[in-house]
Amino acid sequence: MSLSSKHLLGLRNTPREDIELIIDTAKTFREVLERPIKKVPTLTGKTIVNLFFENSTRTRISFELAQKRLSADTINFSISTSSTKKGETFKDTVKNIEAMKIDMIVVRHQSAGVPDFLTRISNANIINAGDGRHEHPTQALLDFFSIEEKLGKLSGKNVCIVGDVSHSRVALSNIFGLQTLGANVSVCGPATMIPRNIEKLGVKIYQKVEDAIRENDVLNVLRIQLEREAGGAIPNVNEYHKYFGITRERLEKYNPEIVILHPGPINRGVEITSEVADGPYQLILEQVTNGVAIRMAILYLLGTLPN
Amino acid sequence: MSLSSKHLLGLRNTPREDIELIIDTAKTFREVLERPIKKVPTLTGKTIVNLFFENSTRTRISFELAQKRLSADTINFSISTSSTKKGETFKDTVKNIEAMKIDMIVVRHQSAGVPDFLTRISNANIINAGDGRHEHPTQALLDFFSIEEKLGKLSGKNVCIVGDVSHSRVALSNIFGLQTLGANVSVCGPATMIPRNIEKLGVKIYQKVEDAIRENDVLNVLRIQLEREAGGAIPNVNEYHKYFGITRERLEKYNPEIVILHPGPINRGVEITSEVADGPYQLILEQVTNGVAIRMAILYLLGTLPN
Amino acid sequence: MSLSSKHLLGLRNTPREDIELIIDTAKTFREVLERPIKKVPTLTGKTIVNLFFENSTRTRISFELAQKRLSADTINFSISTSSTKKGETFKDTVKNIEAMKIDMIVVRHQSAGVPDFLTRISNANIINAGDGRHEHPTQALLDFFSIEEKLGKLSGKNVCIVGDVSHSRVALSNIFGLQTLGANVSVCGPATMIPRNIEKLGVKIYQKVEDAIRENDVLNVLRIQLEREAGGAIPNVNEYHKYFGITRERLEKYNPEIVILHPGPINRGVEITSEVADGPYQLILEQVTNGVAIRMAILYLLGTLPN
Repeated sequence: MSLSSKHLLGLRNTPREDIELIIDTAKTFREVLERPIKKVPTLTGKTIVNLFFENSTRTRISFELAQKRLSADTINFSISTSSTKKGETFKDTVKNIEAMKIDMIVVRHQSAGVPDFLTRISNANIINAGDGRHEHPTQALLDFFSIEEKLGKLSGKNVCIVGDVSHSRVALSNIFGLQTLGANVSVCGPATMIPRNIEKLGVKIYQKVEDAIRENDVLNVLRIQLEREAGGAIPNVNEYHKYFGITRERLEKYNPEIVILHPGPINRGVEITSEVADGPYQLILEQVTNGVAIRMAILYLLGTLPN
Repeated sequence: MSLSSKHLLGLRNTPREDIELIIDTAKTFREVLERPIKKVPTLTGKTIVNLFFENSTRTRISFELAQKRLSADTINFSISTSSTKKGETFKDTVKNIEAMKIDMIVVRHQSAGVPDFLTRISNANIINAGDGRHEHPTQALLDFFSIEEKLGKLSGKNVCIVGDVSHSRVALSNIFGLQTLGANVSVCGPATMIPRNIEKLGVKIYQKVEDAIRENDVLNVLRIQLEREAGGAIPNVNEYHKYFGITRERLEKYNPEIVILHPGPINRGVEITSEVADGPYQLILEQVTNGVAIRMAILYLLGTLPN
Repeated sequence: MSLSSKHLLGLRNTPREDIELIIDTAKTFREVLERPIKKVPTLTGKTIVNLFFENSTRTRISFELAQKRLSADTINFSISTSSTKKGETFKDTVKNIEAMKIDMIVVRHQSAGVPDFLTRISNANIINAGDGRHEHPTQALLDFFSIEEKLGKLSGKNVCIVGDVSHSRVALSNIFGLQTLGANVSVCGPATMIPRNIEKLGVKIYQKVEDAIRENDVLNVLRIQLEREAGGAIPNVNEYHKYFGITRERLEKYNPEIVILHPGPINRGVEITSEVADGPYQLILEQVTNGVAIRMAILYLLGTLPN
């Protein structure tokens, strides 16, 4: 079996078979990660460029590790060292990199649509590592993998995304993919953080986090991006925590069986307490490990597609 | 056959046999770049340091890819992370790096002569990746490779370098190497951008770009370095474009057979129009691909020299 | 034989057998560094993270080269690209990196104790590459290796550390390790640069550098850290040089057999003259080469420990 697309731009139009193939393949790589020698020769001689126009720690390192464990050659390229300073167009920069015979490009950019644009100017496989407020598909896929590892198939499960849904590419990728897999998706947060008309996507809205906890199998708790727009959307973080913070007390009272995900980095005491972040409900570090496996799976599946 | 020197500092004194050997070797590596597995084990266990004291995107990535595709180990070292901040002399920094048993150093520096200085304090093979306004030999070699791929042997061909010749290390390396290969070299640009006494090198000067187009087989169009000194040498970029810009109209009218090179990054609408930069006359992206092959050739030839 | 600890945090409590095993192993790798192919497959499939929270040239490159020559996969992670900017705790950052299935972490940090802290939150092998004013064990080990290479076993040898001992992690690691190996350790410097109560460690204090030269086999000359606290501890560098500078005249007059070490980077004309730094007494570049071998030895010994 192989993927139906040579790119991974988002989950909006990714068919169920592709998502399931990626997750199944990731299971194999998850086992490789437990071995003493966590490396396979699959992508030897392939070149992958990590084109990061936004700062990133975990996503970039996760991709880089996935690439090295598949024996690919990797080049890191960040905006600060780029020729865009010299007045070159973005398109010319990419065309130039591609002319060096690159096989794949992993791209993160602050503008939605950049990965899609790359597919139109490049023959390389393009993987979206986060574009603006649009999509972050590998994060959503590792979320699905982590949930299924814990709870079995997602079909019919209730999953609620809590927090600043409006500014979150993680939320959007989750919504599209979860629906494709047959889960029931809802969101919960202050009205200023919930996109207008999100019900039109078939997404339920919870006003109260207590209800969200009671009626769901999984909460995917988004990071309140203190350094970004969140400042304007909520009066202050204490207020946010009071009404929407995920605490042990709330989980114990309303749903002691619930599973908590968080994409990181965590603001302890804001969207989630340390007790929960370090406690038995959460899969947070499991998500990180699974992230490497998911990225190995995608790189492998795209890198071995017949031309 | 092997190179007559253990360094590549410039083309001024590089014999014809060496240039031809590099280009011939690059042809082989150009084929490797078309394979699914673009990697050979030739330099396994060799260590190459990329010592870049000026920002660079394409040249550094091109070298790094060439090194990885030859299976060398690479270390990137840039000024911002260097001990020169701690008051250490440049010589001590280099001696220290070399003491870690480095095989080759690729160096870019804003001062002419730094690569030559390195040969006096280090036993490693030194490759000049651009030094001040002096030389940039790998760029010139990839230009020659690209021209010969298109037009056959350079001997007897007419090649004109257009633009800010005075501030260009690309121009100087081209002039020396082209003359060694038997081409007729000329330059064209505003008087403020043409070095005094350049005729003494046997280089013809064109006042008018139309004449340059009519009488040459190849134009090597230099980038107007808007971020550097160019501001002082020309009244403004529109004026430059009006008199010296390479446009489809000019090429069609004066020499529809001409071949256009540009070392990049391009200022579209300044030294060259988008129509030309993306059109049938140019070899611009071919140059980029050939650049990797040329660098693989040089690294291979220097890395396998008998001691 | 194998090491008694799975970490290298410092030399304070490292047993003699471990230090000797590291030095013996480094001798083997020193020979590998003289080969045309300076690479062994020992750590293939292992992942090592270089976590540097302080700028470093030589130590980081030395570790990176050691890792690559053992065929490990390496990830560089520096503070400037880190999520600590996003408000994440240091512990969460490390736990996240570790969840990506890292085998070893090499850490440099401005705060003493960070490597020790890492051992409590991570299962990876931790190697201290310098923490605050505490320890820098690999530097001390390469010093010992270099001395023994020149003078034979350290037991019974007289070694004096000259300079800003108070602010030096190199000094502290040297003192602990040298005493473990049976050497007689002393220090020499202005009173403001000698820690109070250092005699309680069994360390002799020299007021005059002439006496230190006369009565020792080895001087380990510390760098005067002009960019740090040294400004406050000495009236000016000329004054320091006058009383404590290591000059050819002093060495010739008081002990022409003495061996000079310096951890670099050198301030020529401050703590040491160029004549000495480039002359026959010193082992400075030998130390740099041995540093790669020592780091290969430690990485090898920790990376192949039975679990």
